[in-house]
Amino acid sequence: MNPADSQGWVRTVTLTPPALDNNTADADRLVAELKTALNTAWVQIDLETIKRMPDQLRRWGFRATAVLFKASGDQGILVHLAPPDRVQSLCGLAVDLGTTRVVLRLIDLVSGNPLGETVFDNPQIAVGPDILSRVHHVETPGGREQLTALIVDGINAQLADLCRQCGVGTDTIHLVSIAGNTTMTHLLLGLNPRWMIREPYIPAVNRPGVFPTTDIGLKVHATARAMVFPNVGSYFGGDLIAGILYSDMDQREETAILVDVGTNAEVIVGNRHWMIACAGAAGPALEGGVTRMGTTAAPGVIDRIRFDEHTSDFDIHTIDNLPPRGICGSGVIDLAAALFRSGMIDIRGKLVPERCAGRYQLKMGVPHLTVVPAARSATGSDLGVTQADLDSLIRSKAAMYTILETITGSVGMQPQEVKTFYVAGTFGAYIDPTAAIAIGMLPDLPADRYCSLGNSSLEGAARVLVDPTCIDRIDAIRDGITYMELNVNQAFMNRFSAAKFLPHTDTRRFPSVTIPTAGDG
Amino acid sequence: MNPADSQGWVRTVTLTPPALDNNTADADRLVAELKTALNTAWVQIDLETIKRMPDQLRRWGFRATAVLFKASGDQGILVHLAPPDRVQSLCGLAVDLGTTRVVLRLIDLVSGNPLGETVFDNPQIAVGPDILSRVHHVETPGGREQLTALIVDGINAQLADLCRQCGVGTDTIHLVSIAGNTTMTHLLLGLNPRWMIREPYIPAVNRPGVFPTTDIGLKVHATARAMVFPNVGSYFGGDLIAGILYSDMDQREETAILVDVGTNAEVIVGNRHWMIACAGAAGPALEGGVTRMGTTAAPGVIDRIRFDEHTSDFDIHTIDNLPPRGICGSGVIDLAAALFRSGMIDIRGKLVPERCAGRYQLKMGVPHLTVVPAARSATGSDLGVTQADLDSLIRSKAAMYTILETITGSVGMQPQEVKTFYVAGTFGAYIDPTAAIAIGMLPDLPADRYCSLGNSSLEGAARVLVDPTCIDRIDAIRDGITYMELNVNQAFMNRFSAAKFLPHTDTRRFPSVTIPTAGDG
Repeated sequence: MNPADSQGWVRTVTLTPPALDNNTADADRLVAELKTALNTAWVQIDLETIKRMPDQLRRWGFRATAVLFKASGDQGILVHLAPPDRVQSLCGLAVDLGTTRVVLRLIDLVSGNPLGETVFDNPQIAVGPDILSRVHHVETPGGREQLTALIVDGINAQLADLCRQCGVGTDTIHLVSIAGNTTMTHLLLGLNPRWMIREPYIPAVNRPGVFPTTDIGLKVHATARAMVFPNVGSYFGGDLIAGILYSDMDQREETAILVDVGTNAEVIVGNRHWMIACAGAAGPALEGGVTRMGTTAAPGVIDRIRFDEHTSDFDIHTIDNLPPRGICGSGVIDLAAALFRSGMIDIRGKLVPERCAGRYQLKMGVPHLTVVPAARSATGSDLGVTQADLDSLIRSKAAMYTILETITGSVGMQPQEVKTFYVAGTFGAYIDPTAAIAIGMLPDLPADRYCSLGNSSLEGAARVLVDPTCIDRIDAIRDGITYMELNVNQAFMNRFSAAKFLPHTDTRRFPSVTIPTAGDG
Repeated sequence: MNPADSQGWVRTVTLTPPALDNNTADADRLVAELKTALNTAWVQIDLETIKRMPDQLRRWGFRATAVLFKASGDQGILVHLAPPDRVQSLCGLAVDLGTTRVVLRLIDLVSGNPLGETVFDNPQIAVGPDILSRVHHVETPGGREQLTALIVDGINAQLADLCRQCGVGTDTIHLVSIAGNTTMTHLLLGLNPRWMIREPYIPAVNRPGVFPTTDIGLKVHATARAMVFPNVGSYFGGDLIAGILYSDMDQREETAILVDVGTNAEVIVGNRHWMIACAGAAGPALEGGVTRMGTTAAPGVIDRIRFDEHTSDFDIHTIDNLPPRGICGSGVIDLAAALFRSGMIDIRGKLVPERCAGRYQLKMGVPHLTVVPAARSATGSDLGVTQADLDSLIRSKAAMYTILETITGSVGMQPQEVKTFYVAGTFGAYIDPTAAIAIGMLPDLPADRYCSLGNSSLEGAARVLVDPTCIDRIDAIRDGITYMELNVNQAFMNRFSAAKFLPHTDTRRFPSVTIPTAGDG
């Protein structure tokens, strides 16, 4: 590794003071030094920074602390010049710009340590809950401006609070790194996303690059720069690139899979040599994708379910151990696995009334299974699943498995062959791989090959602020991804149909899963 | 030559429209095309330009007119996107930013033709007539801001008038090119020049590069870019780099000299392989340099003088043929040559009273020679020269010749060996090489080797706006110049003393000059 790579963006610079026989100008003298420090062919400096530099350098004895950054094209950037003996914090801001939630993390650029974090609902929800409704809102007069103002003002307000809590000023923030899906990124930058939802689905920009934060309207230091993660297309955004960066799968010889289930479900397969990706919401057969499962994870929501054969009852766990008020995605997957193991559903996912005993009932003609009776639930109603919920889960799990099978198959692999299976987001944080394998949603890999990444979009964004090598890696990741349009043809539908059984029509793919015989109707 | 090089900055671009299997974003699609057009590795686009692009490209059928530019570091810039069938002019502005006078030239970027030009006094004269007084004014409270505002407002006001005369709006200006000496450039950019007049004389910046014009405050198109010529040091500015560019001496195999006599006198010797330069005002022995000669060229000022042996009187020519009111530099040189040829001064430049006849008188003890008696002058006073004026001229011409001898000698050449001798500025426009050779100010070359460049600073600045290859050439010129501090040591002083005779103590250097014997005192 180049010595420059082992350091962060903040460097102490010591210049040879000028002399009659060494009369390079101040800015050019500093640039020469910074080129070496950053290992770039060029270093840009703002006019505003040059204005202050001559007096600063002489006051500081030609030593200084430089906050650096880098843009594509071998362009280093001097973002800020501070005294050699720092008195003020030098901070960075990582932004996970989600459709539903936005996370801000404040980072000390010198130590690399996080200083604080805040999560808030994307204020654009007030205008439209999902991507499509917001893009449609752009068509109304002033709609685009309104959406951009909502998110920019929202970030500024939350950031001011976060800085107050952390005891630093917003003007200590010199670098900003933003990872979000392509639409959210466009709306933040004030770019119209209207052509992204119309065939052939074209974003305004793939590689936004590095901007002065004043261009975006972020209230941080006046000369700060923001790096906006690039996208591969309208349906494969910077949040995914950030996730790949954080997983390091682009650095390794072995092939890994990364699955991110957020508003959409995206899958990436690859290693340091190649990478192939697809977005799972594509195609009408997958309507709802793998995401329409259960309630959003929140306090009181059941995230773990086990069926205790001895007590013949469900063991449940709720988030924050509060009285149960719903079942989230991971809970539904656990439940389906438990129901399948105990024979309460058959291999098609259909409830078997005689096995469900008193938990089964018809509500307005729809089969229903109660997990928590009304008397013990926080809502005063029975908590459980309907046959429709289970059918939806079967479609979701079949879609997920089919996508995994299709994308690995496109490079001549089986899903089981991957060395590491990264699961990002809240889905990854809560899901029990064993349960997901039991229902055939995820491939039958040893549990230790599954790795939960957490908020990989935020983590990827944060890493850029502490590791200068990331800039080139992000470019390489983006440019190296082959984006595969999911071609929902007859072969795909055949695989999808085969995957709609528990765990699969081809049980040899799931050797670790014990197939109950009793539940077979 | 690369095909891209044969075109200007305005290009018509035709893009392949996007399709499902060709879904690159709009900005990236355009960038790919522009990289080819500009032959650069990178092309930058403003966020504001990206904002308008998706609708524009679709409205224009994926054809457009692009105004391009280039920064150092292989960075192309998309400055402006216009409809493929242009309705509005696309203009550039070349600025010669002189200490005394500023020239603006408006250029049609498509045809490359000049649209109009205006000359005005640098408004900073109100604060200080020369560089030094202005740099000192910077030390007063608000002084720097005042000087910057004076020149920026001055340019904006004059430009608005010029545009009105040319029938174009100021917002049709997309590219600006600025050549000036290092101090004037610093003041325009709002940079403090205070360290440039203090040893070791360090500018804030050598390579200002390309800026958004909004950074400078120029009232042109909102996304316009300004290229500011780089300098080699505090005493060798962008005006000289522009002059070299215009002379093309950096492109040729044969060695040329370029002398620019403005506020300072600078000399460059070189060819396509090497270039060496020095500034003539350096060193206390050269106080006043070669510039303190006569009156500023202006209407009514005598710019040509000949002595008619038959009438025994001076033949004079005044600028605009108005009644004479002073003698400018070229007139003083002509006069000295005439006086020397006719024996009215000796080889030391001393007036010989008996040869001057009635033209000689002592005024308050100082010898004086009248060229135009009071009765025929516009001022009502005798116009002529004093012995002090002549002594000053002798020092000036000796300084010029010594500098030329020193700089050519530093590369093992004689001044007489150069193939082309460029003389820039008003000095170059008015001077008669034969007269300058006669007094030993310029080397004894055939008259056709002398070439007047005119306002080479303006011409160089203008060329950047029509020839994209200039950007790289400017960098190469700047980086290739060896700046020689004039070391005013004993050897230099010996050469200087030898050059203080007419034409020189070594008359073999001036074989074309007939040495009068009679004037030899």
